[in-house]
Amino acid sequence: MQKFRRNQRIGALMKIFAERPNHVFSYNYFSELFNAAKSTISEDIVIIKELVKKFEYGNIETISGAAGGVVFVPYLSLKETEEILTRLCSIFSQKDRIIPGGYMYMTDIFNNPYIVTNIAKVIVSNFRNKKIDYVVTVETKGIPIAIMTAQKLDIPFVVIRRNNKVTEGATLSINYVSGSSEKIQTMSLSRKALKEGSKVLIVDDFMKGGGTAKGITDLMEEFRVKVEGIAVVVSTKNPMNKLIENYLPLLILEDINEQKQTIRIKPNSRLLKI
Amino acid sequence: MQKFRRNQRIGALMKIFAERPNHVFSYNYFSELFNAAKSTISEDIVIIKELVKKFEYGNIETISGAAGGVVFVPYLSLKETEEILTRLCSIFSQKDRIIPGGYMYMTDIFNNPYIVTNIAKVIVSNFRNKKIDYVVTVETKGIPIAIMTAQKLDIPFVVIRRNNKVTEGATLSINYVSGSSEKIQTMSLSRKALKEGSKVLIVDDFMKGGGTAKGITDLMEEFRVKVEGIAVVVSTKNPMNKLIENYLPLLILEDINEQKQTIRIKPNSRLLKI
Repeated sequence: MQKFRRNQRIGALMKIFAERPNHVFSYNYFSELFNAAKSTISEDIVIIKELVKKFEYGNIETISGAAGGVVFVPYLSLKETEEILTRLCSIFSQKDRIIPGGYMYMTDIFNNPYIVTNIAKVIVSNFRNKKIDYVVTVETKGIPIAIMTAQKLDIPFVVIRRNNKVTEGATLSINYVSGSSEKIQTMSLSRKALKEGSKVLIVDDFMKGGGTAKGITDLMEEFRVKVEGIAVVVSTKNPMNKLIENYLPLLILEDINEQKQTIRIKPNSRLLKI
Repeated sequence: MQKFRRNQRIGALMKIFAERPNHVFSYNYFSELFNAAKSTISEDIVIIKELVKKFEYGNIETISGAAGGVVFVPYLSLKETEEILTRLCSIFSQKDRIIPGGYMYMTDIFNNPYIVTNIAKVIVSNFRNKKIDYVVTVETKGIPIAIMTAQKLDIPFVVIRRNNKVTEGATLSINYVSGSSEKIQTMSLSRKALKEGSKVLIVDDFMKGGGTAKGITDLMEEFRVKVEGIAVVVSTKNPMNKLIENYLPLLILEDINEQKQTIRIKPNSRLLKI
């Protein structure tokens, strides 16, 4: 069987950790993969721990016991958070995003996997102390954020639909009032989608009145799951009083001025404090 | 400024490559990041090249010239492809997936980021010799596959919608006949979404008659973009003659038997040959 040098194992280990953060890998798994003694792997992990700390990538944690092993828990430094949010602001404030009616074209942003990965990194960083079982969103624009966040947390995501599809089996539905349009809308989710008693993180692209987030929260109550947090990429400054409290926006949209062709948006200052 | 040991740089480099495959990083970027001479980085890259080859992770390619640098091009070994497809088959054939009417519940599969990442790895492996600008899908279930595939190709993805949304700006729409339901349906895409003359890879979760894929192909023609490939996760064995040719299914669904509660599904044998 092949043997690997320490350098090579370190590289392979970091690739494996980077591709599946928050997943617990057993020492046995690595030992077999690298055809190396557990003591050798332990020494490798010490080196990885040090480098992850030095580069401020997060933490390598060792979990003892039968289900134990090693896990990479990524989180951003303040500096990196600030860099990501500043870059996001400059992307969101490009004036050619203004669509007649004072809307903002954002599709290209949420369809760029690199940008969405960075958004997910900020979200995951902020909820790293919570135990979360599912990331929940509502179709369509929230889906990329949900999948990337779920990928980084190594958990499934769940997409609430705005209609009923036969392939979903039995569904639970609620009606809610959309905060911005004041229209009554429906959202549905398959009964199989969430286990009772589990904990969820809600993510979405945009929040104005908070009606959609309130709707999701109400639906979660029907499923008897606990909402551990709500993260949105962009939240409008007005109305100040949203239909929900305790949500975490990454960016605050202050104003879209169609005449002057300007978009004012800034990072949520709460994310830039320790 | 901080200095890093070779071990540490190797680990960091593999993390960076793994998190953003198919992206060209300049030597300057690494040189500044690690506060090290370019000759040192070149030596690191030689080690990385070797380990990537040894572990069969794909290839590290060096691109010369002004826009040059280093890029990690991942692709799977035949063995790994076979392992992934075999595992997928055992997940898809779980009998509790059968929904009255002979449908198959697959939502949990496409909502598992780890499974979708593996699906994306197989797709990307098979189209690694094509130059692709966008991954294209139609809402809703294809979206996770599209984003993960696009992430691994370091390109944007585009979601065709089944309705018109005001925030999309001007849209191009077509009507098509869904192969399975024989109903006339509409799909729309924002004019801004695709650049004329670009090359796309279409991905979707499921194909029966091929009507949806045909519809997407027709819409792509309206945008004057070239379809470089069509990949679907599951394609039904029947009808043998689909509305399109030249598509790549990962798995072939042979039969769902509601009475016997069995699902027969197998890997596409074309993927298991060199």
